[in-house]
Parts: sequence; structure tokens; C-alpha cells
Amino acid sequence: MPERIYNFSPGPGTLPQEVLTQAAKDIVNFNDKGISLIELSHRSKEFMAVYAEAEADIRELLEVPDNFKILFLQGGASSQFAMVPMNLLGGSKKGTYLNTGSWAKKAIKEANIIASSQVAYSAEDSAFNHVPVDADYTVDADSEYLYFVSNNTIYGTQFREFPKSDKMLICDMSSDIMSRAIDFSKFGLIFAGAQKNMGPAGCTIVIIRDDLLDRAPETVPTMLRYKTHADKDSMFNTPPCFAMYCVGLVCKWLKANGGVAGMAKRNEEKAAILYDMIDSTSFYRGHAKEGSRSLMNVTFNLPTPELEAEFVKQGTEQGLDGLKGHRSIGGCRASIYNAFPRQGVVDLVEFMKKFAKENS
Amino acid sequence: MPERIYNFSPGPGTLPQEVLTQAAKDIVNFNDKGISLIELSHRSKEFMAVYAEAEADIRELLEVPDNFKILFLQGGASSQFAMVPMNLLGGSKKGTYLNTGSWAKKAIKEANIIASSQVAYSAEDSAFNHVPVDADYTVDADSEYLYFVSNNTIYGTQFREFPKSDKMLICDMSSDIMSRAIDFSKFGLIFAGAQKNMGPAGCTIVIIRDDLLDRAPETVPTMLRYKTHADKDSMFNTPPCFAMYCVGLVCKWLKANGGVAGMAKRNEEKAAILYDMIDSTSFYRGHAKEGSRSLMNVTFNLPTPELEAEFVKQGTEQGLDGLKGHRSIGGCRASIYNAFPRQGVVDLVEFMKKFAKENS
Repeated sequence: MPERIYNFSPGPGTLPQEVLTQAAKDIVNFNDKGISLIELSHRSKEFMAVYAEAEADIRELLEVPDNFKILFLQGGASSQFAMVPMNLLGGSKKGTYLNTGSWAKKAIKEANIIASSQVAYSAEDSAFNHVPVDADYTVDADSEYLYFVSNNTIYGTQFREFPKSDKMLICDMSSDIMSRAIDFSKFGLIFAGAQKNMGPAGCTIVIIRDDLLDRAPETVPTMLRYKTHADKDSMFNTPPCFAMYCVGLVCKWLKANGGVAGMAKRNEEKAAILYDMIDSTSFYRGHAKEGSRSLMNVTFNLPTPELEAEFVKQGTEQGLDGLKGHRSIGGCRASIYNAFPRQGVVDLVEFMKKFAKENS
Repeated sequence: MPERIYNFSPGPGTLPQEVLTQAAKDIVNFNDKGISLIELSHRSKEFMAVYAEAEADIRELLEVPDNFKILFLQGGASSQFAMVPMNLLGGSKKGTYLNTGSWAKKAIKEANIIASSQVAYSAEDSAFNHVPVDADYTVDADSEYLYFVSNNTIYGTQFREFPKSDKMLICDMSSDIMSRAIDFSKFGLIFAGAQKNMGPAGCTIVIIRDDLLDRAPETVPTMLRYKTHADKDSMFNTPPCFAMYCVGLVCKWLKANGGVAGMAKRNEEKAAILYDMIDSTSFYRGHAKEGSRSLMNVTFNLPTPELEAEFVKQGTEQGLDGLKGHRSIGGCRASIYNAFPRQGVVDLVEFMKKFAKENS
């Protein structure tokens, strides 16, 4: 096994090596203070500085306006599926959802437990191989928001342009946050589990417009109210300190590597290498329709499931790890998030060429 | 500053040095697999083994019976304040609470948002300087459970014996889990944030009797139902992988150091050194009443707030860190969890003697 494999896993995903090296150092002795990063009180001045820098760097990288709060929460994106309607749909209001895959479906399920939803579009009948364009659906006039998943990890589809709507947008950006610029004037709230494009598992970033903080009915428990966390700068209770710290390190790495614009360019290039390969042969077939193709997760099939299994096996043996597709659609998937190196994509394409030649 | 300070912080607390060293190694290259621990897919066989070992070791250390599930959740103990009544008090049932400090009060607040509570005892009028004995209170016959906080971090009090009741016990053991044996036949559910006695922040352990898993009304969101997590062995969504891994390492350390019985003995000894010092002088006054004194958090006052501030300052300068008491009661606090070394307690007592002599 090489010193470092290429990790195509959909998440937790690959992280910059510099981040891992720094984290290892600080876990033994943080800033040479004789204490581990993970032993620091979250209320110590050292950890407060870690928090403040991470918050400021996210704000700078994504150009988050002053009227948005950045929260570091626990519970994963899955908890946001419930927190969004609990906080924003009090008094039986309605949210509109675009059903573009498994994560959208889960969010719709929670909305219906708590309030109600309009599903304005569903791509389920076509195995979620695309995302809609604005003309494909209509949002009910009495809806509070339009909810969508910007990138569908399982199916390899992505809103290459965000929906345009007169409703505020709510977005699950778990798998493509920090990969491109966001015009926050269109958004009410975005959230993202950190473990795909921002850090390790255990921290969920919520960026919320401040006028939405106080809309939760009194029946919503304290920990599930956005205001609880906003009022205390994410320190109402002990936050997920290590994951927050790593998110901060990833932000430093992003800043040193061209920021969000630099990532967008790199991601376009990396994905193009793979999609060009897929399009150049009939041996590989892309799952996502053109126009909906994800720059983060490239999904494809081989002629048979047996060949797909062999492809994944041989890939693993060569240090190209995690190429198996999600069980719900099978096939193969290469997740190439921000921190995934270009060379790994080049190596994968070489392997794909060789494998196709040997098995055609 | 010495290579390693003594960290008396109440949490996140000190961890065994072996745990930190191992974690640093695995963060760069897990088991020499060419991938970081924090990049591993939670569904990889490597991480599943990490999970399975941690689960089995907790079960072994605490002698958890087969009819209890061990869950690794996010959201901190604070989320359990709501999840307990959401799951167990459906249909307007009632829980009985013992108000022995800030964390109990917060749990009572959530119970009243969701269902209702009987507060059978409150120590608030005496600045929470003790916990009740069984004869001090009566539990309503129609109550579902008796809820208590086994160790009150802020006030330095502890139930040295668990309450006896014909109701099932529900316990917040955040600050003394793994410090002594538990007779699970009396308990319905215990929970603990990991960051005091079991690992870093970001993971909450819930140990729940399996017949309680399915009591949540249908209105409870998916992520807030214990059954969701029990059915999927804590992998319904991406779990807090790094914190779980560290909990596993701490369990290995506990097993190598005498287990829970070994810790109980060590903790008695460590705490006795400190309480003996406090009792031997009028310069220091213990906050907790005898019989309620915590083995985990030793709270004490000096003659004046000015002397307390100076004591904390000089302690920090000498590598005795985190001795400041909680803002709600002031004074000083030495948190001496399982992983806190005996030598640190000895050094603290030496410092206390010297400080008392110089300032009497």
C-alpha cells in the first residue's frame, strides 16, 4: 500500500494532508501550551480563538453578509431536516421542496412530520439522473421557502446554477459547500455537514439570516432552536471542538489555495478530465444527464455489475479507494471534493482506460 | 511552560497521554492504510471495527446487560434533556426530577416544554451544596421515571449512592460515567457527554433499555427517536467518528488500568488527598456538604474573592491549569476525572499549602 492512497469516498472524504499533519501535532500539544487541543476547555481563550478564526474565515471565503449568523452545530445535516421546519414552519406553514434524491426525500419526510410540504418537482421516476430547471416547476404562493439540495452525492447530480425564485432559498449544501460562490441575498439558510468538503464528521455548519432566528414556536426544545446557538456564538453547550478546529484548518488551506474561486476552477478541471473519459467510450456510461452533472461526485456504470465489482476491487488494490457506488443505484462513483488531488483523477482515468481495454 | 500541564478543567477534560499519542498517529495514517482515521468512510470495514470495539469495550467495562443498547449520538447531554421526555413521556406523561444543580434545572425546563415534570426535591435554596437522600423526597405514583444527575460538575456534589426507587432511574452521568459500577437493573436509561470522563467533545453515549426504544409518539422527528439510532447501530447518519474512536481508545486505557473498579479506587484516593487538605485548614472551605462530596469535581473557597483570583493566577503560572470555579458560584474547582494523574493532585496540595501559608 502506498504511503497515501487516493480516497474517492463520498464522505467522510479526503482532507488536505497539511490539515492532517497540523491536527496530529495539536492533538499532542496545542501551540506548545502543554495541553492537547481536545483537552482545551471550550471557554478557554485558546479555543475561543480557534472558533473566532474559523467563523471569520468561513465568512471571508463565502462572503457571508453581516446579517447572517454562522453556527457550528452537531447532529449532522440529518438533524437540519427537522430543525428547518421546526424553526421556520411554526403555525402550520408550508415549505416547498425539490425532490432530487435521497437526502431531499428525507428532508421532505421530516417537513411532513412537523408541518407540511409542497413537492414542486420530483426526479424520482428517472432514477434521479437530473435536477430540474426553473421552468420545470411552480412554487405555491403561500409557501415559506424553496428547499433544495445543491449537490446529490448518491446520484452525482448538481444544481450548476441555483434555482431562481421569489421565495427565500433553503439549501442543503453538505456535499458542495466551499466549491463555488453563493449570492446570499437569495438565501434564508444554508447548511452543510462538514465531512464532505469542509472537515471531519461531527460538525454541521448553518448559515442563517438573522431575522429567521426567532421564528420557532415555544414548543420547540431549547437545543433545536437556532436562536439558542446564535445568541451564544455556538457555545450554548460544549460544541464539537475538534471538528470545528479542523474546519478552521481546512479554511486556512482554502485561503492558501485560491479560495472558493480557485476551488471552482480546479473542480471544473478535475471533473472535466473524468467526464471526458466517460464520454469518449461506450464502456463507461455516466448516470447523470448533461447539464446536471456534479463536479463533486462522478457516477458511472460499466457494462455489467460483475465488471463493476471487478473494477472497484482492482481500483482498491491500486490505491484508488472508495469507488463503489451507493447501494441504491449501484455502479461506480468517484467523489472528488475540493481536497481531492488532480493527480488522483489522472491516475483514475489511466486505470479506467486500461480496465476498459482489458475487458472490452 | 512544562511539556505537559495539569489540566483541572471541568470539561473538555484531561485525557490519557497514550490516547493523545495514538490519535495523533492515526490522524495522519490509520493502521498504516494510507488514509487518515478522519477520512475513513463510516461504512468502511475499518471504521465499523472501531465502532464495534468501542461498543464492546463500554459493554464490558460497565457490565451493560444484553437488553440495553449503547448508542453514540451527537448534540451533547443538552440534547438528551429534550430527547428523554420526547421519547418517554408521550401522551402527556410525567417525569420526576431531583433538582441538584444547573444541569438538572435545564433538564426540568425541557421536560416542561415537552410534557410535564414533578420536581420531588430541590437543593437550590442551599446553593446546591448537597444531594438528597432517599428519605428526603417522594416520587409521584403516576410518574414514569426518576431523573437525577449523578455528579454535579458546577457545585462539586455527587450521589455517592444512587437513589433507590420503584420507578426506573434515568441518569445524566456526564461527569462521572466510567468512575464506578452501575446496577443496570434499576435504570431505564443513562447518558453522558463524552468530554469529561470518556473522550473529547462531540459524542454522547446513551445506554437505553431496549423496551424503551419504541415509545416515541409519531410526531417526534426521525433523528430525535432513540429507535432510529438503535436500529442502525448508531450509523443512521454519519456519526461523530473521531470522538467515537477516542472513546474507544479511552476504554482500552481504562481496561489496561484496572477498569471501572480500578478507577473507583484511584478516584477515592485522589479526592481524599484534596479533601483532607481542605479539612485541615480554615483557609480553604469546601462548598459541598460531607456525604455529597464529589470525587470528580472538588469545589472550594478561599477567604476572599481576591485571594481566589490570585490563587487561580499563580496556579496557572505553575502549570496547574483550569482551577477557576464556575461563574455561578465562584471560588475554585479542581476537576480530577479518571484520566487526571495522582501526581497533579499531590502538586496541587503542595501549592495549596504554600499559598495558604503565604496569605494567611
